[in-house]
Amino acid sequence: MRTTPRSLQPTSRRRTGGRSARVVHDVLEATVDALAATGYSGFSFEDVAARAGVSRTTIYRRWPTKQDLVRAALLRFAEACPIIGDTGSLRGDLQQNLRTLHDPEHAARQAGLLRALMADFDDPELVALARLVRERMRQPAVAAVERAIARGELPPGTDPDVVIEPAAFTVVMRQAIFGDRIDPEYGERLLDVILAGARAGAGVKR
Amino acid sequence: MRTTPRSLQPTSRRRTGGRSARVVHDVLEATVDALAATGYSGFSFEDVAARAGVSRTTIYRRWPTKQDLVRAALLRFAEACPIIGDTGSLRGDLQQNLRTLHDPEHAARQAGLLRALMADFDDPELVALARLVRERMRQPAVAAVERAIARGELPPGTDPDVVIEPAAFTVVMRQAIFGDRIDPEYGERLLDVILAGARAGAGVKR
Repeated sequence: MRTTPRSLQPTSRRRTGGRSARVVHDVLEATVDALAATGYSGFSFEDVAARAGVSRTTIYRRWPTKQDLVRAALLRFAEACPIIGDTGSLRGDLQQNLRTLHDPEHAARQAGLLRALMADFDDPELVALARLVRERMRQPAVAAVERAIARGELPPGTDPDVVIEPAAFTVVMRQAIFGDRIDPEYGERLLDVILAGARAGAGVKR
Repeated sequence: MRTTPRSLQPTSRRRTGGRSARVVHDVLEATVDALAATGYSGFSFEDVAARAGVSRTTIYRRWPTKQDLVRAALLRFAEACPIIGDTGSLRGDLQQNLRTLHDPEHAARQAGLLRALMADFDDPELVALARLVRERMRQPAVAAVERAIARGELPPGTDPDVVIEPAAFTVVMRQAIFGDRIDPEYGERLLDVILAGARAGAGVKR
């Protein structure tokens, strides 16, 4: 018998809204872990069910296909990173993003996931999922660039794709492939270079 | 006895020295193909021998371990890319590099290799090899930045790592993960941003 009063249960658990939300949370976390362990081609509902401690039927009922389940898990993983908020300056917005990438736990999990999935990026189904996740992560970054243009921090017509992805991709690739521990000062310098170049108008689409 | 005057010996084929050099070439090419097909963990001498049409003994004699063979093949693959020469300007040097990355055949082969190897980048042996290859590819890029500083194109103290890797890594990651076909104008714009930022002194190490 459970004797712990609800009010003493850890907060995140409670806020998510009961057993059903807990199952969703556990299954999607287990899906990310399973992907990191076996990649996309080796992925199975059995593995996820075992990791989450639920039955396969429970999973199938909500996510009938592998694609449905992986899509939901990757989108949640992407949303869990505090990517880019509105800090009042473009530099602040992008710094927030880099800080997430520098967090060792997040970096390790992201690198593991990327390494495991990479071999299957010749599968159009997975490429489509990756593009969806990227687009979801890209939207707040594009919005940050638009705010910067509106504030006069960047010239109108600046291509967001020369501002938002280069710093992140460089850091992710160095971590995931070469196992680099990124010096935060390096990250700042990289942002400085990109922002100074973009401010000078070098990123305007002609 | 040698009868051909050295000055008349024409091509790379001859200079590299006959059958033995041909075997080296074939084995190292086959090694890259085998890596792209099976990754590092699934890699075998048998597979390479079959692909190159030579005996396993022929391979073992020259490269006693998997690490020796893969190191030699990756270094040759890296050297075969006309990474960065001395064109007289930093922009020209880096453009040459980007052009290699935009070449569809090279891009596909590099993306395939990276995708196949990625899952094994938790193996310290492979990470050590990757770092070696990267260092070999980085040297001409660092030299290009040093020439640019000497010519007054960049301020002294500019960190080469905020100039040379970001454009290349962004392009490689977009190709290998998202299957993007990179618009050459995008590549130029990315270079423009990085070079304008570095010229303005934003990449100087403090």
